[in-house]
Order: sequence, then structure tokens, then C-alpha cells
Amino acid sequence: MAAGSAQVGPTAVDVIRTKRDGGRLSDAQIDWIVAAYTRGDVADEQMSALAMAILLRGMTAGEIARWTAAMIASGERLDLSGVARPTVDKHSTGGVGDKITLPLTPLVAACGAAVPQLSGRGLGHTGGTLDKLEAIPGWRAQLTNAQFVRQLRDIGAVVCAAGDHLAPADRKLYALRDVTATVEAIPLIASSIMSKKIAEGTEALVLDVKVGTGAFMSSVADARELARTMVDLGAAHDVRTVALLTDMSTPLGRTVGNAIEVAEAVEVLAGGGPADVVELTLTLAREMLDAAGLTDADPAAALRDGRAMDSWRAMIRAQGGDPSAPLPVAAEAELIRADRDGYVAAVDARTVGVAAWRLGAGRARKEDPVSAAAGVILHRRPGDAVRAGDPLLELRADTPDRIADVLPGIADAVRLTDQPPPDGDLVIERIG
Amino acid sequence: MAAGSAQVGPTAVDVIRTKRDGGRLSDAQIDWIVAAYTRGDVADEQMSALAMAILLRGMTAGEIARWTAAMIASGERLDLSGVARPTVDKHSTGGVGDKITLPLTPLVAACGAAVPQLSGRGLGHTGGTLDKLEAIPGWRAQLTNAQFVRQLRDIGAVVCAAGDHLAPADRKLYALRDVTATVEAIPLIASSIMSKKIAEGTEALVLDVKVGTGAFMSSVADARELARTMVDLGAAHDVRTVALLTDMSTPLGRTVGNAIEVAEAVEVLAGGGPADVVELTLTLAREMLDAAGLTDADPAAALRDGRAMDSWRAMIRAQGGDPSAPLPVAAEAELIRADRDGYVAAVDARTVGVAAWRLGAGRARKEDPVSAAAGVILHRRPGDAVRAGDPLLELRADTPDRIADVLPGIADAVRLTDQPPPDGDLVIERIG
Repeated sequence: MAAGSAQVGPTAVDVIRTKRDGGRLSDAQIDWIVAAYTRGDVADEQMSALAMAILLRGMTAGEIARWTAAMIASGERLDLSGVARPTVDKHSTGGVGDKITLPLTPLVAACGAAVPQLSGRGLGHTGGTLDKLEAIPGWRAQLTNAQFVRQLRDIGAVVCAAGDHLAPADRKLYALRDVTATVEAIPLIASSIMSKKIAEGTEALVLDVKVGTGAFMSSVADARELARTMVDLGAAHDVRTVALLTDMSTPLGRTVGNAIEVAEAVEVLAGGGPADVVELTLTLAREMLDAAGLTDADPAAALRDGRAMDSWRAMIRAQGGDPSAPLPVAAEAELIRADRDGYVAAVDARTVGVAAWRLGAGRARKEDPVSAAAGVILHRRPGDAVRAGDPLLELRADTPDRIADVLPGIADAVRLTDQPPPDGDLVIERIG
Repeated sequence: MAAGSAQVGPTAVDVIRTKRDGGRLSDAQIDWIVAAYTRGDVADEQMSALAMAILLRGMTAGEIARWTAAMIASGERLDLSGVARPTVDKHSTGGVGDKITLPLTPLVAACGAAVPQLSGRGLGHTGGTLDKLEAIPGWRAQLTNAQFVRQLRDIGAVVCAAGDHLAPADRKLYALRDVTATVEAIPLIASSIMSKKIAEGTEALVLDVKVGTGAFMSSVADARELARTMVDLGAAHDVRTVALLTDMSTPLGRTVGNAIEVAEAVEVLAGGGPADVVELTLTLAREMLDAAGLTDADPAAALRDGRAMDSWRAMIRAQGGDPSAPLPVAAEAELIRADRDGYVAAVDARTVGVAAWRLGAGRARKEDPVSAAAGVILHRRPGDAVRAGDPLLELRADTPDRIADVLPGIADAVRLTDQPPPDGDLVIERIG
């Protein structure tokens, strides 16, 4: 037995042991291990053992702040001072049918702010904003730093892939956590999100922390702790940060997929769209505009009068996309119908999210392609009355085998009752 | 966030998550992950995250038994039925100055048993038996299976390196645990030791579980749990297993190193040697002979009448060593003297072990060489009277810088008092 390794081993072993035994990591330990991991001097198997120890032992607020600072310091922090407009970004912890970034970014830009949205791809059932936008013919996610800043200045709205220069420690650690069951650690989630958002250079940030079966956090208590941790991290780095806890027990809107979510976002920008998507878009826009100091802006008017749609079209065009081009449509479709009369009491977000993912809208591995057209359409939402035989869900996929895979059990996603269900609140709590 | 990875990810993520959340791993999960890790389908970073989860969450007796069986099944189990003598082995969890295997193996062989001692190299301050024997000119640790069985049959005593065919899962996992601060997990320690000993083919086994500052386990409660776990694992695989908990707060004997420990072992085989080394050698020999069914054997007589020494010389010669050759002597030596009159109350095993390791007797990394001649000699042991100026410790090394490294603080290893200390018991408890 290597009982002497306290003296013998590399410093990584001491850092892991400190956290394993429930101790507090020192600033020097955190700075060292994040930097050494980024440059490859600490091995993946050492960092994953540390991540598991962090997940099970926790971190103090001071440790989380230092860890976040070390992740930011692993790369560059963008300077957006040349943009002229106030900058404000939004981050969602991920939900089923969560296409809010699509209408929200051009809407807030149309109201005078600049939204520097550096986004990721989807892994798992909650989808990724870049995957959704890539359903638009010609649109490209990659921009250089200079293109990013110019588009921000000229249009105010950018959604693009984060470059390798932003928090590279997080990029490496996130991929590791995904394969080692260490994603679900609040200190690591908070530092991952906030290191990227702070490095991105935004002056203000609104967080949409999802709670419910379709979200990453299923309890309000956990979501509140995550939100509070992130708001504090923002404040410590001079980023004005507010968090909303929002419900994710039901998919947002009527579409879960890529092209079909883009189409729904365009409906919202045209002044229509499902009530919940419009409500959340306007609520988040209000928070973002307030955080940006644009308290007089009227986002509802910008939706009504077409300014938000103009901003969307400019944003898509600036990245090579054709906002007028038809979106891809799936070759295969299958309707799931009600077997009785009644009311829709619930549509389970997780079940629908996993179904959309398996239909082809999401990917199992980073390198997998996604289907632009696949997904699930909700023909009825909670509160709607139905008669036996009415369509509840529509499955869409590129091939029949994908639909056959998903059919067993999918009807259970929709729960029918005799009485209409009570209304639930979309926004659960505000922290900031 | 990859909230969907329960469905998406590889099975390794599910196994890690089960243990992370405090669940019991199923037999199928254990069989799969041990086999998949051995063949490289589960990555090091996944196994280290699982090891940390096991360390912090624990395992049931049933999980440990299955894990051990899976590690044995990862390689071959030797068939020693052709040896004719009853087979019995000993394993020590590692102590400072623990050279007991050296006199014990030939002693038990001289009494009629066969001792198939497959041993390891030292990593850390507790030293390795192979490193000690390699101080003997010509001696080689590597034997083929056929050589191993023949030497067992003809001489009854073999100490050699375990081949790659025995519990390869353990070999890989042990190296991983060493760099990820996951060594100190009782389920993993017990399964590591027992998988190798069971695969080695011995019919009976005596475990020397060390407790104290110089040992891997510093509390009697932990040592007892480890011992009980290993005894149960032995019984489950039809290996008669007994454990002794023995004190490791003081180094064993008067030497800590490689060649100097061999010299002390030879003194014991010649009928002399320090009282504690003789006592522990005879106690363990008695347990081994009883476990082997040789209840009439008289190990004390075998030490007195030279049979044990004959067996030692035959064992060393069979592996190319010259038992009469002079052992290497260090170029540098430094005495640490008493600064007052009094009694030696304690000699701290850990401090002495780390000093010997830093003088060159041990290695920091698997690939490092060790110095045959370096180490620490105890000129006084607990209970001895001393006068100011008497030598307490002697440091030996190949180069003066090694001694200079160790000098600061080394005198603190020896605690002097005005009154003689009470005698401590070497054997704390017997479990079997």
C-alpha cells in the first residue's frame, strides 16, 4: 500500500485527498490544479476523482469563487468595450422545448442592448441552441472574435459557438464530467456556466434556472442554491446577475426539436406563438433590459411592431443564413391520439425530451450529427380539453425505425383527467 | 447540461451514478465494469470516479465479494495441486522495517509447508519485499509459472514477482488508485489483496494487518474492519484465512531499508535478531502452520537447528542469488545522538519510514530505482536506556545530499522520557 504517497505523490494527490476528506481547498491548490489540468499536467483520471469528491463533499462559497476565477484565468476574457451598446446575456440551464434564446436575443437587441450569446451544442434531452439554428439553411455557428464584436456592434444580436480561447479549463472539464457521472455537482455547474459567461465579457446576465422533471434540477431547493451561487459569482466579477427559477415540468411551447422550434420562435417574433413562450420571452427580456439599464424599453411593442423580427432576420443573415428559406420537414410523422375525452393534466417534459432526442433531434455523443427535422409537436397542452381520437402528440423523424423506437410508452407522456387542472406558474422565484 | 445522459451515456456512467448516489451495485454491473475496465472499454477517468464514489459511499459485503470475484476472473487462478505439500501464504498490509516475509517464508517451508509468496515492489514509505531481496547479488524476482511451481515443490519457499496473468484488473486499478487518492478505501484494499492471493492458488492465508502511525491503517477499528472483510473473502473462496492485527507505531527490528533488512533477517534465521522480529516471525509461522494443518511442527526448533537457514539459502540460490555474497554498504552514514539522559519512549514509525524512503530505500514512482544500501538503523528501541551522546539513529545513503535532505527534524522521530515506558503488545488482536 502506498501509505507514503502524501509525501511521495504528485500534488494532485494532495489536492484530491484534501477534498476527499472533507477539507477546504486552498486558493493555491485551486489555482494550481485548474491550470495544471488545462495544460495536461494533471491527468483526466485525477480530475475526475476530484470532481467526484467535490460532488460528494461540496465546496464553500469561497472555493467556488476561486475555482471560477481559475477557470476564467485559463483563457482570455473578451473586451466588449468597443460595442457601444450596454451588453447583457441570458443563460438557461436547459429545458425541453426551450427555444427562448431564439426570439429573445433579437428582441433585446431591437430594444437597444447588445446580446453576446456564446452558446453550446446539445448533449442529452434538453437540446442545444446552435443545433436549432443550424436547421436554417446556410447559417453558421463559427465566428472569429472580430466578426463577433462587429456583429454585436452593428446588430446587437449574436448567437455563436464559444471559441477555444474562452475558459478552456471548463471545456476540458465539462467533457470529462459528462462521461464520469460528475455533471450534477452544484459547485461545478455554477462555475462552468459563470466562467464562460464572465469570460465572454458581458456586463449583465439573466439566468433562467429550470426546475422540474425535464430539467437538470428537479427540486426547487437545489435550483435555488444553484441560482444563488451563480448570482454571487456574477457579483464577485462585476457582472450584474439576476436569476429566475422557472418551471420545466411541461415542455415550453408546442415544439421540441430543431427546425420546428425555429419555426415556433419565428411565430413569436411575428407577434404570435404559444402563450408560455411569449410570456417567458417577455419576462426575460424585461429582466435583461433592466439589468442593461434600459428601463424605458418596451419589448412587447418591439414584438408587435416588427422590430424584433427585423433584428432576427439581420442576425440570421449576418451569419450566412437565409431567414426566408423553407425549413427542413421530416419524412416520417406519427400522431398519438387521446383514448378518451377529458382534459390534459400534464405533458411530462422529460419523457417528451427523451423522445425528441431519440427521434434524432439530439445526440448521444459529441461527434454525432443531429436531425434538423426530427422532434415532437404538442397538439394539446396542459389545460386543453380533448375528445377521444384527438391528436395529442406528433412524432417526426427522418426514418420509420426512429419512430418505432419511441412509440412504446410515449402515450404515457400525456396524462388526461376529467377536470381541468389548476394553472401553474411559469416563473417560480426571482433571485438577484 | 447533459441531463439526458442516464439514457444517453455509456453504461459506465450508470454504474458510477449508482454508487455516487449511495446505491448497491448489481452483480451484473460489477462483472461488466471490472471486465470492461480490464480490456480498456471503460476509461481510467471513469474508473477513478467510481473508485472515489466507492471510497466515500462504501460497499456492502456482497458487493465486495462480487468485486473480488470479478478481479480474480479477469485473469487466471493458479493450480498448485502438483506441489504435494500443503500451501499457505502470508500477506502484510505494509509496515516500516517489515522484513518478516524474509525469515518467515523459509522457516515455514522448513517445517513442511509450501509458501507461494507472490509479492510486490514498494511504493511509499513501507518498502517492498522484492526490493529488499534484490539487494542480494544475483537474485532475480521474475519466475515463469513452471519455475514457480517447481521451486515450491522442491524447496517449499518462493518469493517472486506476480505475473501479468494474475488479477490484471487489480494491477491496472491499483496503479490508478495510487495517483487518484483512492487507495484508502477498505473495499478496494480488501479486494485488491485477496484477489491476488486467491488467484495465486494458496490453500491457506495468514494476514498481518498493521495498525499505527507507520501503517496504512492508523485506527484499530479500521484495521479490524479490513481484517474481517478479508477473512470473509478468503472463506468465500475456500482459502482458510486468519488475520492478526499487529502494532506498527514503532519500526519492526533495528533496520529500515533493503540490504540492512536482509542482514537482519539472516540474523533471525541464524537464531539471533531483535526480539520483536523473532516474536512476530514465530507467531505468524505458528498461525501459518496451523492453517496448513501442520500442527505438530516446531518453528522455534527450525530456527535453532539451522533448518530455516538451509531453506533460506536454497530459496535464494534457486533464484540466482548468492546467499554468502557480501551485501552492499552505503558510502555515507550519519549518527543522530541523544541530547540528554533518559529512556526511549517511542520511535515514530512513520517518520523513520519516510526518512528511509527519502534516503533512497523507496521510490516515488513505479519506474524509479531504489538504493540497495540506503536506510535507517535504530541503535536504540523503545524501553532502552540512553545517556546524552549515545547514538539513537544512523542514516545511510549513497550520497551526502540525501542525508542532508533528511537531517532536519529526524531527531524528533525518537522521544526520550525520564521513566521507562510501559511495554506494548505487538499482537493486538486475532481475527479468524
